[in-house]
Amino acid sequence: MTAGGRRMSMVDVTGKKEEIRIAEASGFLRLTEDGVNAVKSGESHPQGKGDPIEVAKVAAILAVKKTPELVPHCHPIKITGVDVDVEVLEDGVKMSVRVKSEGKTGVEMDALTGLVVGLVTLWDMVKYAEKDEEGQYPHTRIENVRVVEKIIKEKE
Amino acid sequence: MTAGGRRMSMVDVTGKKEEIRIAEASGFLRLTEDGVNAVKSGESHPQGKGDPIEVAKVAAILAVKKTPELVPHCHPIKITGVDVDVEVLEDGVKMSVRVKSEGKTGVEMDALTGLVVGLVTLWDMVKYAEKDEEGQYPHTRIENVRVVEKIIKEKE
Amino acid sequence: MTAGGRRMSMVDVTGKKEEIRIAEASGFLRLTEDGVNAVKSGESHPQGKGDPIEVAKVAAILAVKKTPELVPHCHPIKITGVDVDVEVLEDGVKMSVRVKSEGKTGVEMDALTGLVVGLVTLWDMVKYAEKDEEGQYPHTRIENVRVVEKIIKEKE
Amino acid sequence: MTAGGRRMSMVDVTGKKEEIRIAEASGFLRLTEDGVNAVKSGESHPQGKGDPIEVAKVAAILAVKKTPELVPHCHPIKITGVDVDVEVLEDGVKMSVRVKSEGKTGVEMDALTGLVVGLVTLWDMVKYAEKDEEGQYPHTRIENVRVVEKIIKEKE
Amino acid sequence: MTAGGRRMSMVDVTGKKEEIRIAEASGFLRLTEDGVNAVKSGESHPQGKGDPIEVAKVAAILAVKKTPELVPHCHPIKITGVDVDVEVLEDGVKMSVRVKSEGKTGVEMDALTGLVVGLVTLWDMVKYAEKDEEGQYPHTRIENVRVVEKIIKEKE
Amino acid sequence: MTAGGRRMSMVDVTGKKEEIRIAEASGFLRLTEDGVNAVKSGESHPQGKGDPIEVAKVAAILAVKKTPELVPHCHPIKITGVDVDVEVLEDGVKMSVRVKSEGKTGVEMDALTGLVVGLVTLWDMVKYAEKDEEGQYPHTRIENVRVVEKIIKEKE
Repeated sequence: MTAGGRRMSMVDVTGKKEEIRIAEASGFLRLTEDGVNAVKSGESHPQGKGDPIEVAKVAAILAVKKTPELVPHCHPIKITGVDVDVEVLEDGVKMSVRVKSEGKTGVEMDALTGLVVGLVTLWDMVKYAEKDEEGQYPHTRIENVRVVEKIIKEKE
Repeated sequence: MTAGGRRMSMVDVTGKKEEIRIAEASGFLRLTEDGVNAVKSGESHPQGKGDPIEVAKVAAILAVKKTPELVPHCHPIKITGVDVDVEVLEDGVKMSVRVKSEGKTGVEMDALTGLVVGLVTLWDMVKYAEKDEEGQYPHTRIENVRVVEKIIKEKE
Repeated sequence: MTAGGRRMSMVDVTGKKEEIRIAEASGFLRLTEDGVNAVKSGESHPQGKGDPIEVAKVAAILAVKKTPELVPHCHPIKITGVDVDVEVLEDGVKMSVRVKSEGKTGVEMDALTGLVVGLVTLWDMVKYAEKDEEGQYPHTRIENVRVVEKIIKEKE
Repeated sequence: MTAGGRRMSMVDVTGKKEEIRIAEASGFLRLTEDGVNAVKSGESHPQGKGDPIEVAKVAAILAVKKTPELVPHCHPIKITGVDVDVEVLEDGVKMSVRVKSEGKTGVEMDALTGLVVGLVTLWDMVKYAEKDEEGQYPHTRIENVRVVEKIIKEKE
Repeated sequence: MTAGGRRMSMVDVTGKKEEIRIAEASGFLRLTEDGVNAVKSGESHPQGKGDPIEVAKVAAILAVKKTPELVPHCHPIKITGVDVDVEVLEDGVKMSVRVKSEGKTGVEMDALTGLVVGLVTLWDMVKYAEKDEEGQYPHTRIENVRVVEKIIKEKE
Repeated sequence: MTAGGRRMSMVDVTGKKEEIRIAEASGFLRLTEDGVNAVKSGESHPQGKGDPIEVAKVAAILAVKKTPELVPHCHPIKITGVDVDVEVLEDGVKMSVRVKSEGKTGVEMDALTGLVVGLVTLWDMVKYAEKDEEGQYPHTRIENVRVVEKIIKEKE
């Protein structure tokens, strides 16, 4: 058989039944003390970019809905709710994204996609406080991105 | 509580039932006499951009389908039909966008999004006739954008 | 010649020189008194959708960048800055979007696109306060959407 | 009636029932002998672009999901499965895209859209082997793009 | 070395100089006599979908601008002009898409992408006339998709 | 001042000069032993989803180009090259994404966005091997996402 001659499939879920599917993903953005203060700056962002947390939450919600466009094998599904929570800690920010849906498959990849885009956006919002004098980011990290739980329930 | 520490949610509609949902939005693009004539030019557009009204209608239909990507809190919903109507008046153009859907929420934001993108596109198509000698638009306005009606019906 | 047989062109700007191009668009979202209060609610949005103004501003910035995808004849251009301003008045909210760019054409359609999507998003954020008991919007309107100014400057 | 005054509609399918809808489209990319060998190169692509067939298949799957954004009158539908098959022949490559869905309309345009984007991507992957010394493509062609079959079945 | 362990690269064009780059792609949509008449129907499309040719041209222009999103290895480039031409023949429709750009690479894939999406859209517009009584398309084909010419010129 | 009354700005970079800007981001996907073997499965993916690493690399390249659409304050910039490297280790996979560009700002957020979408895609490709019997992911983590370096060079 020639290279690449095999079939590639987005998995067939036609025969599966519709369920309520919920997934929550969480992760941590490690920041310097300056970065944590920048997160807390709210609307007084020195470059006028807006409240870092509000902007990151909006980016997370929008990214959840873009998952089938970003992750090649994700099916388009009916997202019925998204919650984004942010907790500002001493050494960074914890974010979690919980997605509810009705469908035959999913929805943990959608929660993960929203989460990682939200974390990158938060980084972007406070990068002025995270860069060292050479423009590098010696301290900033995204860590511990995981699926907290996945729940499947029957539709009533 | 720290700034932005609260949850942000795309509203949970999981428990709501599926209905037929219809919404119509309308608005007006105020134009100069030259602009109105430009709208009527049809395919003889002097820059070859095509029939202004046809292009604006296509833009409106496509924008309806892009609503969940543009308006952060809009749920992806099953759009089952769109009608775009245009009426050329003496002092401008009235456009209306009617969207039918099946879902648990919506659909007036989708109709509004299609409408405003359709109106901006129509403006773009005839801008050569609306600009004054300094490249400004002293007369052109989008006005009276509103939701004409919203109807919710049971699915048969 | 058959119907539609003519050429359609996205205008050729190859020969034009690169300039700094700035455009500002503004518009008004007419709201009820309840709606205006809802805008002022900030993060205490009763459905948890976040600060209405912050979310609308983010939507406006993102939509500016989506203009060539929404308005068929708009060229992709190098956006170098966007400012979104919101003024809460007694009977509604005034929003303005100012876009800076470097390029051969534009940038007023990009400012208008950002603006109208921002206004629709703001409407979406406070719609719970604007609907009457039949779910209709008798008072809400987008009005007076216009190009405030367009400036073309030489690149240094 | 004024030019363009008529209504434009994305066809109303609200009243139609949900069915399982399957469509398969196929087409052929005619290549030189060098081009066919380039397709077979797999991951040893001389410019490091990856395995031509794998990349083309991913592009095809993603494009299927983008159909309502690309083809103005296509309804957003619930895609439940996609298969992309590639057969390397002596004078080119045959690709077929099979799409399964549940919905009221479709799904042959979605299969065709995935297919043609997949074929253009495959062309892009091996273009270094297809260009003549003047940078032209005297031999490369996309041919025989057709809908192989369309099946409509009742949902169980 | 493990499977897939190699690098994948979108080719580095940083060191190349900016040029004016023009490419034209053309292709043919083979139709039945009924289909050709449907193309000529213009705005009197029986389902109200609009003038088939105008809608297809808009889809082609928009798709040109979406190329870097659809074809994984295509660089985002500055598109400076697009011409779409349609010629209605006895047994189908010939479409050509000519793209002008300024950049370091391209632009034939962008012309091809616009063309194939334009042809699929035209098919979609007249599919009611092409289907046989079993809903199949025994006659409809996209054929002879090729790059007519590619030109590289120095910027003045 | 009313809540949210302040300006929000995508930072104005008009006055900055064009430079060559390079950034590399890397991160780690922690997997079970089964997951690592699944990564190595290549095209023999049991669900036919294709070579996990090839698909993840394509997703990373596409996501780099989508950064300004995902991260609200990121400017559209001229991406001139992307390298995606994957290293399969005993307990997971290290991925790095290096982006080259010409522009006035960036490009570390674009590298980070490509990377995190690439890592989520890789997770999606091998999730069948990572889930425990309750459908949870007790071991899978994305870790140590960081900017390896950022380089700014003069254009020649």
